[in-house]
Amino acid sequence: MGRASDAIDQQRLWDRHMAIARFGATGRGGVNRQALTEDDGRARAELAGWAAARGFKVAVDEAANLYVRRDGSDADAPPIMSGSHLDTQPAGGNFDGVFGVLAAFEVLEALDDSGMTHRRPIEAVVWTNEEGCRYAPGCTGSLVFSGRHRIEDFLDATSPDGAVLKDDLARTIAATPRAVKRTGGGPVDGYIEAHIEQGPRLEAAGLTIGAVTGIQGGSSFEVIVTGEDGHAGTVPLRQRRDAFRSAMAMVEALYGATADPDDTTRFTIGRFQAYPGSPNTIPGEVRFTIDFRHPDGDYFAAMVERIVALCEAHAGPCGVAVKRRHVAPPADFDETVIARIERIAGELRLPAKRMISGADHDAKLMVPLCPTGMIFVPCQRGISHNEAEMATPDDLAAGARVLADALLEMADA
Amino acid sequence: MGRASDAIDQQRLWDRHMAIARFGATGRGGVNRQALTEDDGRARAELAGWAAARGFKVAVDEAANLYVRRDGSDADAPPIMSGSHLDTQPAGGNFDGVFGVLAAFEVLEALDDSGMTHRRPIEAVVWTNEEGCRYAPGCTGSLVFSGRHRIEDFLDATSPDGAVLKDDLARTIAATPRAVKRTGGGPVDGYIEAHIEQGPRLEAAGLTIGAVTGIQGGSSFEVIVTGEDGHAGTVPLRQRRDAFRSAMAMVEALYGATADPDDTTRFTIGRFQAYPGSPNTIPGEVRFTIDFRHPDGDYFAAMVERIVALCEAHAGPCGVAVKRRHVAPPADFDETVIARIERIAGELRLPAKRMISGADHDAKLMVPLCPTGMIFVPCQRGISHNEAEMATPDDLAAGARVLADALLEMADA
Repeated sequence: MGRASDAIDQQRLWDRHMAIARFGATGRGGVNRQALTEDDGRARAELAGWAAARGFKVAVDEAANLYVRRDGSDADAPPIMSGSHLDTQPAGGNFDGVFGVLAAFEVLEALDDSGMTHRRPIEAVVWTNEEGCRYAPGCTGSLVFSGRHRIEDFLDATSPDGAVLKDDLARTIAATPRAVKRTGGGPVDGYIEAHIEQGPRLEAAGLTIGAVTGIQGGSSFEVIVTGEDGHAGTVPLRQRRDAFRSAMAMVEALYGATADPDDTTRFTIGRFQAYPGSPNTIPGEVRFTIDFRHPDGDYFAAMVERIVALCEAHAGPCGVAVKRRHVAPPADFDETVIARIERIAGELRLPAKRMISGADHDAKLMVPLCPTGMIFVPCQRGISHNEAEMATPDDLAAGARVLADALLEMADA
Repeated sequence: MGRASDAIDQQRLWDRHMAIARFGATGRGGVNRQALTEDDGRARAELAGWAAARGFKVAVDEAANLYVRRDGSDADAPPIMSGSHLDTQPAGGNFDGVFGVLAAFEVLEALDDSGMTHRRPIEAVVWTNEEGCRYAPGCTGSLVFSGRHRIEDFLDATSPDGAVLKDDLARTIAATPRAVKRTGGGPVDGYIEAHIEQGPRLEAAGLTIGAVTGIQGGSSFEVIVTGEDGHAGTVPLRQRRDAFRSAMAMVEALYGATADPDDTTRFTIGRFQAYPGSPNTIPGEVRFTIDFRHPDGDYFAAMVERIVALCEAHAGPCGVAVKRRHVAPPADFDETVIARIERIAGELRLPAKRMISGADHDAKLMVPLCPTGMIFVPCQRGISHNEAEMATPDDLAAGARVLADALLEMADA
């Protein structure tokens, strides 16, 4: 009997990526398939259709997490799971998240094609709203599955486009009408998520596989600066309560405090808007977000506190409210899973290295539930969260091959 | 025979302000009555109704400028005009612009009540889109009236809400269906615009009337910074083309270059937005506006060039395009008009001073056409372009009294 990896079909895996890329296609090479939109529902329905054609079992839970299951020989054993997300950024690419879902589904198809059996069930999963663009925070689906939150905690969330999560959730669940309704949560006997690296390190090192050791600490803040609207032509600068100017002072201080000669720190102002937004009115309000990440737990925790303090210290004549939307310390993956991925990559003659994940992933939420790991493949120039995001068919198939062998080993262990 | 100012009805003037304040009222004390919206049309219809009830002639031109005319004894004489605008900022107040329109109309009613005649006609005018919030640049109506532009130059402009100017213009003209259609433009024998100061100087000095000597130089720019979207958690900072970070460097340089110990310079970033605007995506684009004003013509001209150069010099790894939306050097009003306003204020025992206008006004466009001036009255704490904008009934009536005597003198001169 051959290896599960032998049955991975590179062309089919690529074609499935291109098929999903139609949903929310922007016409500029990327997609806008934000979570719980109609396009998100259409992509899920497409996957459920492929699963039904194979005879795999399809289920959906209260958070709209979608499961495709290939049964194992032991009907009572918890599953080995693998997956990621189908939602994207507003100007997103065709691989972030999608690859993890389709690699897991490709493993199920490869096992089916080759007639291999396994003791534990293997489940491909689509987590809901990993990106968190329309509804913050992200990782809604895995937060609920992991028991960290109940779906009720999120139902009343509203999106910038005025929608309410519970309505979008109901429509998304209804997009796969033949899926069996189930409840989220374990037990689970293992989880591996395949993903494009979303950074430049594998490509720069000429490697194909990253055996991910963990996820760096990540934090997200929303800062609301409150000043006073005024006429741009008349009010002397010294009398102004200019929310933009105070926000600038905060941002300057934050850039200074997070400056890092090692270039390990990730510090990003992703959203920044002045209100009312008229060219000749002094802004009475500014809202901006801060995304700060670092792999060192102690430094991460200290800097999270300092970010809040610096915003408050530089408000000048304005008021400021700093909301911590999300603060997650670094998380370590399971050594046996990391070692397994490293070993299998070697057996498949795929050059690999251990590396930490800069991005957050649903896998982080699985760490407390079961032995968890991730497989990275390169993405060109490290570009992600961008319509130009690109990965090669070879690299995607290589990642799926490592995933296939690892999942089969874990399903039979 | 008394003075025209004796017939000014303070309560009526105030009531008219409150009546116009209903159109676009936000429920927070201010108004959002942006140019060429349905609320703008309703406010014009209300004024036209008051004029019709008085038997004044009402006309509208191709730029939707609305004219209310009281005839003079000389049927061939060009009019003396007075007015301002009814459109507001998105979070605007109840006096900016409105006062100039209603003060001029109050003068017509006062003359009518007292049966006074005058040689030249006196016209109250509503200029279209002074604020320029939905359609840039502002002063659309006075730009067309003055011959600086034809309305055709603006017809295809689009607003952020997706409307096209020509459609909004047609609807606004149709809002006063009984107004006689006329063509904009002179000849005009004089123009005075009454306005709230929109700054704190009159209030601080305990004065009631500003005899405005001119308008400081004003400029408006739109800056578009182009970088590259990327994942906030993965891309090292040194590899980023972060449009937000480059925009910050520009803003810092601009703040430094425009720093002014005399606090004469007016420098404002009123609109600033990062795209795509996702908290965990490095912004690939930032758009912001710059509003710069100064009364010294040479300094103004030099700094306009320097603003463009500084943006270009601080783009870092990003691209930048700086669009000059509006560059208007300082303008001087007519000395005879300034002196007349100063003298009449003294005769009415209203404390007055000469002052330059920080804000731009339609009056600036009238300078080349005829002897032009402005009358300022205080606004509380200098707050304008803000829903909290406030002026007292006493001060508004004082301004209308000076206006009445000045217009009548000019109509008979």
